[in-house]
Amino acid sequence: MNEESFVRKLSALFPQPEDVKVGPGDDCAVLDLGAPELVLAAVDQVISGVHYTPDTPPDAAAGKLLKRNVSDIAAMGGVPTHALLSLAVDPMDEEWLLAFHQGIAAHAAPYGIAVIGGDMARLFIPGEVLSLTILGKVEPDKLCLRSNAREGDWLFATGCFGNSFRSGHHLTFTPRLKEARFLAGDFSCAMQDVSDGLLKDAVRMAEASGLALQLDPEKIPLRAGATLENALSEGEDYELLFAVPDRVRARLEHEWPFPETALTCIGKFAAGGPGTVSGLKKQPVNTGYDHFR
Amino acid sequence: MNEESFVRKLSALFPQPEDVKVGPGDDCAVLDLGAPELVLAAVDQVISGVHYTPDTPPDAAAGKLLKRNVSDIAAMGGVPTHALLSLAVDPMDEEWLLAFHQGIAAHAAPYGIAVIGGDMARLFIPGEVLSLTILGKVEPDKLCLRSNAREGDWLFATGCFGNSFRSGHHLTFTPRLKEARFLAGDFSCAMQDVSDGLLKDAVRMAEASGLALQLDPEKIPLRAGATLENALSEGEDYELLFAVPDRVRARLEHEWPFPETALTCIGKFAAGGPGTVSGLKKQPVNTGYDHFR
Repeated sequence: MNEESFVRKLSALFPQPEDVKVGPGDDCAVLDLGAPELVLAAVDQVISGVHYTPDTPPDAAAGKLLKRNVSDIAAMGGVPTHALLSLAVDPMDEEWLLAFHQGIAAHAAPYGIAVIGGDMARLFIPGEVLSLTILGKVEPDKLCLRSNAREGDWLFATGCFGNSFRSGHHLTFTPRLKEARFLAGDFSCAMQDVSDGLLKDAVRMAEASGLALQLDPEKIPLRAGATLENALSEGEDYELLFAVPDRVRARLEHEWPFPETALTCIGKFAAGGPGTVSGLKKQPVNTGYDHFR
Repeated sequence: MNEESFVRKLSALFPQPEDVKVGPGDDCAVLDLGAPELVLAAVDQVISGVHYTPDTPPDAAAGKLLKRNVSDIAAMGGVPTHALLSLAVDPMDEEWLLAFHQGIAAHAAPYGIAVIGGDMARLFIPGEVLSLTILGKVEPDKLCLRSNAREGDWLFATGCFGNSFRSGHHLTFTPRLKEARFLAGDFSCAMQDVSDGLLKDAVRMAEASGLALQLDPEKIPLRAGATLENALSEGEDYELLFAVPDRVRARLEHEWPFPETALTCIGKFAAGGPGTVSGLKKQPVNTGYDHFR
């Protein structure tokens, strides 16, 4: 069983009440708590030796943990608001822990994210398991879902792909929050971030929308040192994939106000088997990150 | 440096905006998101070999994880609503993971808690680090804070104390949610749950309220097999400590509708050095759980 189907099996265990507009399966859950804006919630973790090398400074690990959660909020069209930390570490070294929390504070400040709580416990072996829950908010008319792509929409991407881990991009990236806020509602209502691999994440979007995807692999912008295979499969890019209706495409390309962030059309959603992909000359050997492999 | 002072040092790193009514330092954070009820948020984790023995069935570990978070919501006077899971495990064994999630679902259902999201990653060594973020809600006039005890209030406790781990209580307990909802607003507005040790948690409440505590240790109900020392210091009781104004004490004792849950007055809040305790014939050798020791 692969991760996708196992997660689907798990999701079936959890009924979702009326106030849950979107449950497990998108970048964030979406709650209607009776406030003017919808509430977004997601959790993500980084683990020493898995998501960063042991020589990574604590503030860089903190930055990755915070920013990959901000990226999830961005992908819903929202803004981050609050965070809770859950840390299992050994040793309980005050210097490391202080530097880590200073890193969280420094990375949270520009986004106005309030760290409102946390839990700290000793791990049973040297290392760190660092988890962050993020809350955010989004106006109902800006909410972006994976399942909102429509037949004929163009698939766009921000930035470039591949070679994230070796280049250090996975630590130094800037989540595409301002880009997502510019897009949400006005140019797109179907978005997700790329964490597990461009192809895998694009397929998820097509599948959730009940559409096929015509990919234009030659258009995919490659990060320095990356092959197309790397770009399709490695993940940790923290870029946005989003669907753009044809009627706003020209205006988007004309008005895009972020010269430092590449904006590229890399495919098109079409009628067809949900999640099927055409346009690839060969399937990548590695089909994206699967925690079960 | 002990855990208390280190956590205070960390909290100073994190400014709290207007919508955060209570930040780090109570059982939950309290948010005013513009909905009729306040939002509660907390995170807590259980770790194999630390919070449960390796032979603990996955559904029992799941129950402990969920219930200790429900206990935090109860201590604020609220009700739990939503949860997110963050799991780092090795091996990624489907049978174990399925049983764990079934355990979460079974324990969440009676409370109507919706599991709205999660993250799963492989740990770098065999074992489990299991974290759960809980959201809840509370009417503003039922909100209970550690800092709300007043001079002359009686200190009450539910249930009994000590010998939680060896007796298995730490797995089989029922969080005091219905008791807390009965108390909140009408009989108490100062409550917390006992996780790190009765004495330590009572001192936290006195300290947060700027009061001294006159403890009546002979009144503390002991679990079978527990000494007073055990009861004062071991923790994991998941009982409620709460302050009761003198004017409602008699009515509370008369109207208490839970014959299965002991209700005991174990002390009194008084003017004096914040967090100082009188009435103990000897200080316990162990002063409660400190993650830094």
